[in-house]
Amino acid sequence: MAKPSLPPGTRDFSAEVVRKRNYLLNSIRAVFESYGFGPLETPAMEQLDTLMGKYGEEGDKLIFKILNNGLDNPEKEKQTREALEYVLKGKNSKDLTERALRYDLTIPFARYVATWHQQLTLPFKRYQIQPVWRADRPQRGRYREFYQCDVDVVGSRSLLNELELGCICHAVLTKLHLPDYSLRVNHRQLLVALAAACADRSQLGIISNAIDKLDKIGLEKVKQELAHKGLTTEQIDIITAYLNVSGSLSQQLEQLEALLGQQPEGVIALKELRQLILELQEQQVNAILDPTLARGLNYYTGTIFEIKAPARVQMGSIGGGGRYDDLSGLFGVPGIPGVGLSFGVDRIYDVLEELQLFPQESAQGTKVLFFNLGVEESRAAFAQLQALRERGIASELYPESVKFDKQFKYAEKRNISYIAIIGKEEIAQQQVNIKNIRSGEQRTLPWKELMTLSFTW
Amino acid sequence: MAKPSLPPGTRDFSAEVVRKRNYLLNSIRAVFESYGFGPLETPAMEQLDTLMGKYGEEGDKLIFKILNNGLDNPEKEKQTREALEYVLKGKNSKDLTERALRYDLTIPFARYVATWHQQLTLPFKRYQIQPVWRADRPQRGRYREFYQCDVDVVGSRSLLNELELGCICHAVLTKLHLPDYSLRVNHRQLLVALAAACADRSQLGIISNAIDKLDKIGLEKVKQELAHKGLTTEQIDIITAYLNVSGSLSQQLEQLEALLGQQPEGVIALKELRQLILELQEQQVNAILDPTLARGLNYYTGTIFEIKAPARVQMGSIGGGGRYDDLSGLFGVPGIPGVGLSFGVDRIYDVLEELQLFPQESAQGTKVLFFNLGVEESRAAFAQLQALRERGIASELYPESVKFDKQFKYAEKRNISYIAIIGKEEIAQQQVNIKNIRSGEQRTLPWKELMTLSFTW
Repeated sequence: MAKPSLPPGTRDFSAEVVRKRNYLLNSIRAVFESYGFGPLETPAMEQLDTLMGKYGEEGDKLIFKILNNGLDNPEKEKQTREALEYVLKGKNSKDLTERALRYDLTIPFARYVATWHQQLTLPFKRYQIQPVWRADRPQRGRYREFYQCDVDVVGSRSLLNELELGCICHAVLTKLHLPDYSLRVNHRQLLVALAAACADRSQLGIISNAIDKLDKIGLEKVKQELAHKGLTTEQIDIITAYLNVSGSLSQQLEQLEALLGQQPEGVIALKELRQLILELQEQQVNAILDPTLARGLNYYTGTIFEIKAPARVQMGSIGGGGRYDDLSGLFGVPGIPGVGLSFGVDRIYDVLEELQLFPQESAQGTKVLFFNLGVEESRAAFAQLQALRERGIASELYPESVKFDKQFKYAEKRNISYIAIIGKEEIAQQQVNIKNIRSGEQRTLPWKELMTLSFTW
Repeated sequence: MAKPSLPPGTRDFSAEVVRKRNYLLNSIRAVFESYGFGPLETPAMEQLDTLMGKYGEEGDKLIFKILNNGLDNPEKEKQTREALEYVLKGKNSKDLTERALRYDLTIPFARYVATWHQQLTLPFKRYQIQPVWRADRPQRGRYREFYQCDVDVVGSRSLLNELELGCICHAVLTKLHLPDYSLRVNHRQLLVALAAACADRSQLGIISNAIDKLDKIGLEKVKQELAHKGLTTEQIDIITAYLNVSGSLSQQLEQLEALLGQQPEGVIALKELRQLILELQEQQVNAILDPTLARGLNYYTGTIFEIKAPARVQMGSIGGGGRYDDLSGLFGVPGIPGVGLSFGVDRIYDVLEELQLFPQESAQGTKVLFFNLGVEESRAAFAQLQALRERGIASELYPESVKFDKQFKYAEKRNISYIAIIGKEEIAQQQVNIKNIRSGEQRTLPWKELMTLSFTW
């Protein structure tokens, strides 16, 4: 029999990894909850219609579709054949597949708001931490199943929401010992103003896409791309001037004002950016105005964010988000504006791992192992064991009375800190012998002292 | 545009439900951890081969299969057509689908043990709490996506493991305020002995299946079914005697001894049952010997368990499990015995709901809402708000300075307990006015007292 394999791009998560991930997610969750956001969970599968056409042509191809039931069954030949004929005519793939696995948490959230909008109390503040699936080519650091962690508020246009999301970012990352993150902020309307200033608003897509690549390909290549797309030298000069904006926040705002202060979108964007960034900085958030931030997703309409990992690790973006005017409009319920932030939890996990920032106890399992020395001895040990467990101290009794050596190895491999021994002599004295495996320190105590002993020596 | 719908049999979970479910799962998790079990997470999708053929013919049909990528694409006509021809010949459905969603947590766990057995430290104790998917016909209380919650230990034959699982059951259910559960215990080898005593061991399946229905159809119908399957009156008399075993534990054991004490399997089963049940009762576990317990799943080979909800609710089974000799043998790695328990978390949720046993705070979101009275006022409120949040008290500032009435309604609908008001006068006095919405009680406090105020009045 062949050794069983996992589907490519998927992973088993051992206790250590799950515990560390739970430490990370619980830290984030506690901040979300303190800001009044509530958890939402949507199903792993959505109607195919709900997902298709929302992520562009490339995205559509990466959606995992679920085969309608029974179609792989030879007995249903006619039905399967008909389904296929439809598909092959490009008519309707519903006969083959009607459901698909969620590709992100944004579209299911928009669908949720559209489904339940009449019952929802606005503003509606939700967070969602669930896995998503993408049929991407698996490679180092890119998986077909991974977690997303989104926090959004819909039903309010107030900039206070942006301020709170920035504060959440700060609270989460300082809690995780990454106070040297940076939160880059820009505004979609500033890019609209730029397009208007140098050509016309319809060029927004081309200009945004080129700017989005600045980090990766550099200014010269961005200029080449713009020229290739048909922009004139004068137009490219304006964009270059925009990308060269620098200095302190007030200097940046001054230069942008000079460049784009004539455009109505520029006026609004600069006013909001000034107010928001000053308020964020007042709250100790490491917010920076970054005019080169574009963010590809085309549902953003206002402020946009990107969270960057501390410069001491090579990681770059560990999250992002922005304001959208009309996400649930995709599902026929228009007029509900919103703003959200998404934390890249897999990347943050890697950063914490690289910088060794997971607290030691976050990965800790069993703390105390009672050795099994026989029937009588294990009965005595069991009583003590149960009392420790009631105190919430993770502990075990080795299930068989095998050689000491084997029990000791088990403790070592499981990374258990203390071993507890109750032999015939200890029973007679109502005592227990406890040893810290790492330090070698041993203590012999009366049983009743176990009830209050702290395992921190 | 049509209102978006959810796939049949799937659900959105609101904040209240997710919070209550988290209370339930965290309670269970804490017990598992205190017993030294570690979390495991496996991918939502497994290779189709891993799942098919493990759940019987009916089960196979209920597995959700994932369409191989690209097959719903008209451009790939040739490939899709070939895939289908294979399927229709009953040859190999791999060309249409190679992956499927997990159907339970047991088979993925067996696959995990087989995949990683060389790295695992035995005995290996794991718990797993994840959703599973089944293409069952949706109906009241039966969903296509639901949680399972399994705890297993593999690599040890010691009865101590059964004892610990019984203690875990007790600890979980008393913690959830359901101390009047019952844990029914039986032994697969006792049924083998019964088959041997009245016919031969090959009749085990027929006899188990009939006994398994006793609860639902009653003794007379069970006897009819056995007769229908070809058992003689004498054989059915033995089974009837077995099913009529009653009285105290020692009386039950005596009667079973008389019936099956001649069979080697009976001797072993009765010895283990006597020891285990006495030890469980010594640990206050509500363990009962139930010879009529059969459990359909054919991988069980030793002790079998069923957890019954308190009689004060109509629910019946809320969990079960048993010992298996060779689960990972399904994947070519034989000789790793194990025993496990599965908690029916959806059913336990319903029991807690019906008996109103969820603690009030388990569903609580935001505790304090600061009203928004304008730019200056909300700046002052924001500072106090942030201080409460740092104390972990979930609180919000209404994002717009709209009418009091609207802000008040928001607090009511969101089930927020306290409203906090900082107006011009309060700013001058550096005070805040706090009102408990339910009791109507109001307090006016200096800002600094907010830092220590407990919201329990």
